[in-house]
Amino acid sequence: MADIDFIRDRLQEAASLVATRYAERDQVHVTSKTEANDLLTEVDLAVQKLLVDRIRQSYPNDVIVGEEDGYNQFPEDPSVRAWVLDPIDGTQNFVRGLFPTFGVSVALAEGGLPIAGGVALPLVQQVYLAQRGAGAYRNGARVHVSDLDSLGLARIEIDFATQPDREETLERFARIIVEGGQVRCHCAAVVPLVSIAAGEMDVYLHVSLNPWDYAAGQLLVEEAGGRTSRLDGRPLRLFEKARGVLATNGRVHDAVLQTLRETHPSASPGTRQ
Amino acid sequence: MADIDFIRDRLQEAASLVATRYAERDQVHVTSKTEANDLLTEVDLAVQKLLVDRIRQSYPNDVIVGEEDGYNQFPEDPSVRAWVLDPIDGTQNFVRGLFPTFGVSVALAEGGLPIAGGVALPLVQQVYLAQRGAGAYRNGARVHVSDLDSLGLARIEIDFATQPDREETLERFARIIVEGGQVRCHCAAVVPLVSIAAGEMDVYLHVSLNPWDYAAGQLLVEEAGGRTSRLDGRPLRLFEKARGVLATNGRVHDAVLQTLRETHPSASPGTRQ
Repeated sequence: MADIDFIRDRLQEAASLVATRYAERDQVHVTSKTEANDLLTEVDLAVQKLLVDRIRQSYPNDVIVGEEDGYNQFPEDPSVRAWVLDPIDGTQNFVRGLFPTFGVSVALAEGGLPIAGGVALPLVQQVYLAQRGAGAYRNGARVHVSDLDSLGLARIEIDFATQPDREETLERFARIIVEGGQVRCHCAAVVPLVSIAAGEMDVYLHVSLNPWDYAAGQLLVEEAGGRTSRLDGRPLRLFEKARGVLATNGRVHDAVLQTLRETHPSASPGTRQ
Repeated sequence: MADIDFIRDRLQEAASLVATRYAERDQVHVTSKTEANDLLTEVDLAVQKLLVDRIRQSYPNDVIVGEEDGYNQFPEDPSVRAWVLDPIDGTQNFVRGLFPTFGVSVALAEGGLPIAGGVALPLVQQVYLAQRGAGAYRNGARVHVSDLDSLGLARIEIDFATQPDREETLERFARIIVEGGQVRCHCAAVVPLVSIAAGEMDVYLHVSLNPWDYAAGQLLVEEAGGRTSRLDGRPLRLFEKARGVLATNGRVHDAVLQTLRETHPSASPGTRQ
């Protein structure tokens, strides 16, 4: 079975489990992780276990990196062949019932780059899939980024993330918030990333994202004709220290980088990039 | 036929039209209104016409106020019995395909207050309805606001609105953005307002909202046990000059007002309230 077919089947299986548990979410057990707003449910753990078990069976030699306990360490060798998983991106939205802004993300990486991957949005029955060099697809139909080329008309997702990142988020992105066409915040990275791939949004910004949040989304954006980078323009590499992420339709990428540089000209070496 | 039954039937009729046109939105004609990001489609106009025609038939003596051309003037007497309509709240999301964040809003007002109203979210087949004093309902089931009482855990919708309001939005709400539990922005007022009514969000803030954006949502929040006000705490009255809107689950309302006062202590008389 080709990797991409394996990914598709896992996404469908996981999406079905997530949709079922969402419908009965009042009975789902919820705890918090690093801080009170960083939620973890038994469903995150069950979906991660499902994905891990299947990968172990079919790819016994591959490394697995996932958002939840036991798998959330970066590999020592960042270039290793690795599966990068987020069982539910947007757990807060899942718990509180904010439809349909959560998704399952599965990517296969080599050399620090995603080479195949996909995102499922369980509540709208959408599965996005991409292979490096072979385009991006939504439910089997090819998707492309928008051709919009003005920041003043762009739909921009600013991810306000968790409290520790809020001041930096406001400081670095204030000018883009003021000058951008439209501002959105769903707080589930997969949603704006697949939306950019499908031409429904144009820009996504986050000061501090983990590889499981963006690995599949990065590939989808790039394969749909868009562009990704760190906030200073350097290329994204999974498992490196830098955590800022910019993804765009490509046409407005340089304009966003320019605005970020002008807002934050004297970034110290310790600043997230 | 009771007013609320008339409203329910109109919302279902409008939602069906919106969902059909959304599916073929590539063929929908789009123009802009006051500025480039303020979009208008033929669907907004068709839905407004549908609603206006039906109201004229059943309530020939009532005033009609709607978002689009021909109906977007406030009545001279703000206490008049009036129908307050937004054919599509979230037109940008409709046009670009950002599911399901747009809705149809219909309210009946008397004495500057909504007394019956509802919101339809066409893509998720949800209709919210409320009558003053009789509770709020989603698809026939009673809904209630959350019982969350800490701003540091609250899910807060900051509506970044259109460009002319962005700097004021950032300035007035920056502290709430930094200190709040979660930040979201869907830019379709009906979505956070029904979400608060259903207990899925806790706070909504906008510096400049029109009555058609919030008339039905205000009633839904209040009838679900929540609270609404201007940004300085005064009660909302449709058709008055003040345009800032705060809606909450009730329990965190005073904490939000207190934070707004501390952020913006010397509000001049010209400042939006």
